[in-house]
Amino acid sequence: MSTTLYRLARVLEQRKDADPESSYVASLYSRGENAILKKIGEESAEIIMAAKDGNRRAIVHETADLWFHTLVLLVHHGLEPGMVMEELEQRFGTSGLTEKAQRR
Amino acid sequence: MSTTLYRLARVLEQRKDADPESSYVASLYSRGENAILKKIGEESAEIIMAAKDGNRRAIVHETADLWFHTLVLLVHHGLEPGMVMEELEQRFGTSGLTEKAQRR
Amino acid sequence: MSTTLYRLARVLEQRKDADPESSYVASLYSRGENAILKKIGEESAEIIMAAKDGNRRAIVHETADLWFHTLVLLVHHGLEPGMVMEELEQRFGTSGLTEKAQRR
Amino acid sequence: MSTTLYRLARVLEQRKDADPESSYVASLYSRGENAILKKIGEESAEIIMAAKDGNRRAIVHETADLWFHTLVLLVHHGLEPGMVMEELEQRFGTSGLTEKAQRR
Repeated sequence: MSTTLYRLARVLEQRKDADPESSYVASLYSRGENAILKKIGEESAEIIMAAKDGNRRAIVHETADLWFHTLVLLVHHGLEPGMVMEELEQRFGTSGLTEKAQRR
Repeated sequence: MSTTLYRLARVLEQRKDADPESSYVASLYSRGENAILKKIGEESAEIIMAAKDGNRRAIVHETADLWFHTLVLLVHHGLEPGMVMEELEQRFGTSGLTEKAQRR
Repeated sequence: MSTTLYRLARVLEQRKDADPESSYVASLYSRGENAILKKIGEESAEIIMAAKDGNRRAIVHETADLWFHTLVLLVHHGLEPGMVMEELEQRFGTSGLTEKAQRR
Repeated sequence: MSTTLYRLARVLEQRKDADPESSYVASLYSRGENAILKKIGEESAEIIMAAKDGNRRAIVHETADLWFHTLVLLVHHGLEPGMVMEELEQRFGTSGLTEKAQRR
């Protein structure tokens, strides 16, 4: 289960050039980057609402939506989830104990 | 590396009740949910800008920031990243080949 | 022309309890606050994209969308655009010359 | 009071090329468009939170913040609030009675 994001990224990669009619992802890619970014803005607003509503089910649902669409964006730019994980590892230390100051 | 989000969630869990002075995360938790949600709104705007700038380095950086702060939110609500992965698995099929219609 | 927002607010007020089928605004009110807030999150993402695209026509269009939906929210809460104007006046001074520090 | 946005836009115009140290607005302009857009993303998240908190005072405050920063953006692009008003007028009819379908 822990490799979900990696497997999902591979599936997204395969759909980049698929027939727009064949799937939601293929349709999203065919509509271009702004369509992807609009979803990211939308989902982040929905996470905020779900949290304020104290709706735990919706928080999980909207977080899945947001992670999914950020993956779509990464793949759109030829990036991989592993790069994000590396960034997180660097910030938080290989030991998982040291939280590095990452604020601007 | 694939278990980064799970390990990170455990670290966050430990810092929920830590001294606000001891780390950025502890300080964020002490400031309350709105501080976390504000970061989520902010990071999603920054991903959009990074993408429009075609700045691949920044896309990775801002995605790490966004995933990180959604993890903080999950932990705040006693939720786990595994629940989000399950949701993603359900939508995209155990085979990773079937993309289920998840649109409203 | 300068009273556009005030006139618009009055129109919105009248539509609060109208048949959801009768107009977009009436339908928005009937779907509840989250529907309004979702639009605000969406429009703000779209302004960001329009600006990054350097699309002046779209900036005006999306700003109109955003101001419109914030008006819908104000009216939903029994608030008036004049209250927002007063807040802006207080910050920037009646002379229009003094910008008060309003940052946190 | 109804001309607040127009007067404010003129003040912003004057500060576009002012010393970044001289005011918040001058500093914002000197930091470039992304600094302005980041604020727009931030303020829209804060309006959502204020609304969910049912905090009427904060809704007014955050709406002022959001309108203010969209004005800063308009002026940055050489645009005027009157253009946004015209767009709103066109959509809602000169009589203020007819709401035109403006949804995509």
